[in-house]
Amino acid sequence: MSSNSQPVGLSNARVVMQQCLSARLQVKPPSDTSEAEYVEIGKGLLIYLCFLKDATVDIVDRMVKTILGVKLSESDDGKYTSILDLPGDVLIIPQATLGGKIKGKQMQYHGNVAKQKGQELYSAFIEQCELSMKSNAKCSEGSKLLKFGTYGNRQVLSIVTNGPYTHLIEF
Amino acid sequence: MSSNSQPVGLSNARVVMQQCLSARLQVKPPSDTSEAEYVEIGKGLLIYLCFLKDATVDIVDRMVKTILGVKLSESDDGKYTSILDLPGDVLIIPQATLGGKIKGKQMQYHGNVAKQKGQELYSAFIEQCELSMKSNAKCSEGSKLLKFGTYGNRQVLSIVTNGPYTHLIEF
Repeated sequence: MSSNSQPVGLSNARVVMQQCLSARLQVKPPSDTSEAEYVEIGKGLLIYLCFLKDATVDIVDRMVKTILGVKLSESDDGKYTSILDLPGDVLIIPQATLGGKIKGKQMQYHGNVAKQKGQELYSAFIEQCELSMKSNAKCSEGSKLLKFGTYGNRQVLSIVTNGPYTHLIEF
Repeated sequence: MSSNSQPVGLSNARVVMQQCLSARLQVKPPSDTSEAEYVEIGKGLLIYLCFLKDATVDIVDRMVKTILGVKLSESDDGKYTSILDLPGDVLIIPQATLGGKIKGKQMQYHGNVAKQKGQELYSAFIEQCELSMKSNAKCSEGSKLLKFGTYGNRQVLSIVTNGPYTHLIEF
């Protein structure tokens, strides 16, 4: 079994990917003195990201290579290519709920990474994505966007898709 | 290990759930003679549904009980309850891509159910959801909607969420 196909329960991170035509994510909730702030992307890839408790920073590089390299983005001629080759925008959404395990009628999150470590891994993941997109000629010449949600907050999200083409990858 | 927490690779069905404030799904693509047709729901639950190759109709009843019963829908007072108790709308989205397994830079779908059997299981799932919602006083009195995508077609989807609260359940 390759390290990209570990069964749930033995994995260190869980990622759901969807393609989108556009997406908008709240990065700062409204307060008494300010309106909510949002980030937006155009055609590209949504990455819902959850680290589990045995995750270490060692897996981040492989995760980013896999996610940005897997051919799950539909080009204009209907063929599937990587988000780097499309090229397209990327929106990273922290989603700790993906680590949930059902027990009775409740979800439990005992398998999730601790919050502080999760924050570090999340930041490392974003940094690695930024590096990969910047060093990719198609993305950097096309001025493709990398946007991301704020860790630990509610991810107020709207998406428009031409088919979400939802995939799950365990790491 | 309970039957609700089988590891990926040993499961018969894979479901991703998201909450939404509203959602719209294409159920008939445009043609030369007609415009595209869509279904819409308000506040409720999105169910992305994928049956794997050993799935039989026996699992449908348990799946529907679990999915409609698990407390993943946020009520107005911020507590989480089942979609039946909320009560809220339901949108079922066939999503065979969820059965994908990564190999190199490609996704493979050898673990997915055959198309004809998948269609039967999908129809059974919808029927069971309809029965459960109709026989639930809160849903039927509140005229809550059950909508669903057409099996085997592109699921052109738009969603608005107040936080998707994405969960994965394997059956």
